[in-house]
Amino acid sequence: MSKHGFDYDLLVIGGGSGGVRAARRTAALGHKVAIAEEYRFGGTCVIRGCVPKKLLVYASQFREEFEDARGYGWTVGERRFDWGELIAAKDREIDRLENVYRSNLEKAGVVLLKSRAVLESTHEVRLTATDKVVTAEKILVATGSRANPHPGLPGAQHCITSDEAFHLQRLPKAVAILGGGYIAVEFANIFLGLGVETTLIYRGKEILQGFDDDLRHELHQAMVKKGVKVRCEETIREVVQKPDGRFEAHLVGGDIVDADEVMLAIGRKANTENLGCSRAGIELDGRGAITVDEYSRTSVDNIWAIGDVTHRMQLTPVAIHEAMCFVDTVFKGRPTKPDYDSVPTAVFSQPEIGTVGLTEAQAAKEYRDLEVYRTAFRPMKHTLSGRDERMLIKLIVDGESRRVVGAHVFGKDAGEMSQLLGIAVKGRLTKDQFDATMAVHPTAAEEIVTMYDPSYRIHDGERLDA
Amino acid sequence: MSKHGFDYDLLVIGGGSGGVRAARRTAALGHKVAIAEEYRFGGTCVIRGCVPKKLLVYASQFREEFEDARGYGWTVGERRFDWGELIAAKDREIDRLENVYRSNLEKAGVVLLKSRAVLESTHEVRLTATDKVVTAEKILVATGSRANPHPGLPGAQHCITSDEAFHLQRLPKAVAILGGGYIAVEFANIFLGLGVETTLIYRGKEILQGFDDDLRHELHQAMVKKGVKVRCEETIREVVQKPDGRFEAHLVGGDIVDADEVMLAIGRKANTENLGCSRAGIELDGRGAITVDEYSRTSVDNIWAIGDVTHRMQLTPVAIHEAMCFVDTVFKGRPTKPDYDSVPTAVFSQPEIGTVGLTEAQAAKEYRDLEVYRTAFRPMKHTLSGRDERMLIKLIVDGESRRVVGAHVFGKDAGEMSQLLGIAVKGRLTKDQFDATMAVHPTAAEEIVTMYDPSYRIHDGERLDA
Repeated sequence: MSKHGFDYDLLVIGGGSGGVRAARRTAALGHKVAIAEEYRFGGTCVIRGCVPKKLLVYASQFREEFEDARGYGWTVGERRFDWGELIAAKDREIDRLENVYRSNLEKAGVVLLKSRAVLESTHEVRLTATDKVVTAEKILVATGSRANPHPGLPGAQHCITSDEAFHLQRLPKAVAILGGGYIAVEFANIFLGLGVETTLIYRGKEILQGFDDDLRHELHQAMVKKGVKVRCEETIREVVQKPDGRFEAHLVGGDIVDADEVMLAIGRKANTENLGCSRAGIELDGRGAITVDEYSRTSVDNIWAIGDVTHRMQLTPVAIHEAMCFVDTVFKGRPTKPDYDSVPTAVFSQPEIGTVGLTEAQAAKEYRDLEVYRTAFRPMKHTLSGRDERMLIKLIVDGESRRVVGAHVFGKDAGEMSQLLGIAVKGRLTKDQFDATMAVHPTAAEEIVTMYDPSYRIHDGERLDA
Repeated sequence: MSKHGFDYDLLVIGGGSGGVRAARRTAALGHKVAIAEEYRFGGTCVIRGCVPKKLLVYASQFREEFEDARGYGWTVGERRFDWGELIAAKDREIDRLENVYRSNLEKAGVVLLKSRAVLESTHEVRLTATDKVVTAEKILVATGSRANPHPGLPGAQHCITSDEAFHLQRLPKAVAILGGGYIAVEFANIFLGLGVETTLIYRGKEILQGFDDDLRHELHQAMVKKGVKVRCEETIREVVQKPDGRFEAHLVGGDIVDADEVMLAIGRKANTENLGCSRAGIELDGRGAITVDEYSRTSVDNIWAIGDVTHRMQLTPVAIHEAMCFVDTVFKGRPTKPDYDSVPTAVFSQPEIGTVGLTEAQAAKEYRDLEVYRTAFRPMKHTLSGRDERMLIKLIVDGESRRVVGAHVFGKDAGEMSQLLGIAVKGRLTKDQFDATMAVHPTAAEEIVTMYDPSYRIHDGERLDA
């Protein structure tokens, strides 16, 4: 019993990255904390997102390694890939990680409620597993999001999402993916790397909306070169199952794509259905996400929400950051707004995209004078492998302050690079400080500190020659 | 003819990274410039250093990729490696790069003198190929360095250095390497990766003197785990050729190491022999390197020296930086001292080391209060590969200013990471600015921005618990 007569000082609904961090940190301060999770601890990131995705990426990268070895004097015998072995190994690792999450919660003194939790009022939550109602002084909703099932699509019931992609019984021979965001793109590269005939269908003009246009185009070209069939400005109007059990994706333009699996990757929906939000008085936005203020507080005074369920920025580290700001604000008396400025991100495509700060197009709207530094080159490894792949690096510099306001990398390990470029961009360093950094040779990243002259300038949104 | 009656405004002796950059930049300013090179353009870096070394590193990394694939569901047939094919491919790439260097010089209008050049006086240089003397108003010596041939070692004539390692007729079955610096360590890892029985013999207590002790120890352990026989506090007293043509390295402690090749990697010597330095009045230091002031000027007013021949910091980017400072100072009227502060560097060992700023030991001497953030973990890739390899990351923070004064990474792609960490450290960012950077998940580099509490502190050189 908490000191104000509630069962708990804090009840967290949802055992993903954000919820777990908030529960552990609050419990560590001596508060009585419970966390309700209906399925497995770890959330999207651990169970059906970042972690298993990256493991599949690793698996799918070996094919090119085998090929690249040839140019270095290696002869590699016949290769075989067993999807079942990979999935079993991946599942063992996910089990291990889930146990780490659970045991960290237990060590922190958090009470684990293995149940779906539904809000009954502002302080009451029903645990559906036992039909028991528990009370809490404060509630944190961290129920995350799920793949949009696209109910309006005829034949949607035949389709998989990323959730099922992690547990397919067999590796498909051919797959059609609907969507052009990072999940669609990452899975297209995974499937292709594992030898699957892959078609990506996206209604937009170019994949990866929101990323720098140069990188979007460069990745598109690279994927086509590897063998992904990319169909932009096209979409699926119906999915039909054939007598042999396989599927046909009928496109709006009239083409039919044959596939063993059709995967939908058309965004994610906040998990607010049947959560009792209206009973508790929690306001949702037009897309069903929970509306919060700058401190993650919902429209109800004692209820907060963090992570994907709030539709702010759907990234694990952001959810964790929101969790820590929530604890600082609510339990440490230090009101702290989450900081969404210059958040570095990665797309684990092949090659990868790593990015921080503004795209060229965004920067051109915000700054009067811009310098754009851009270089494209063949990475040293591929001089001998012979692989026709190039790396692209762009820095966007405010001409007035000389600050690097955007840094974009397309190429191997761009994700790792964006993390460290993120420190420099977040630290508001200038191009002159980049230039003052000695190169490390031979690396790909040295190109970032050796672009002495702008490739072009932008003035009032107009591109000028340098 | 230059405007002051000399054949050239600037004569550069040595066609390596530093000399080529100085020649091109000066010629671009409209000056009459010649560059003398007796062998091939590109210098140590391109011909027998950084570039071919990195290509060999790539070749030697595939073995572990083949092994790691197993845990991801791949079965890989028999592998064979052909050393001759690798060397031929490497040589083709070096030829290509040399041509790029040469053609860039020609495009810039630099006169190429294919000859060894010997100083006859302060303004006269003899080209030994034609025995012709040419004159120059200003001279830049950029003759580089070469592997120390260790003439004092009985049997040294049987040994190879890194120069010959790049052109061995056959891949040795067993190799013994004398030395503990980065060249010794990199070649030990290359040979081991290519299947060679490798022994590293080093007289010091621990490999890689000058690097952070934690990383030195960690790499030593990793190399032993992979199978390199590391013998510290030991040295070779004699190399003996056996009747079968193979060699025995007789160690001071009494052991004998059998090897097909014995490689010496015990430092490098400045190329000042038979250069005519004394005739021109150029002073050398006790080790035979050219003494220069802060602007790279020798003891002779119109002669400068840059790069390895000056024994300052033997790195390609540093030589290039010195070249650009030389041009700014001498030909642009902007006196500019080379900046040796916080130079990031990499060791392309396996795994790599990437480092910038002060080691823990150096920082403990310079700062009264330090915070050390340290984490060691298994990289995600190896959760499924099963490889027993860990990554180590250390940040050294000045407790007073909160500035990150040293950043050290041991693990895959640490070289790339050090380049980008270099920007942050050179930019004098604080630990709080590192912490304010959002993580990119899942990456290894995210550990660098998520170490919230120091592992320990150091006060007045004494380690305290955090």
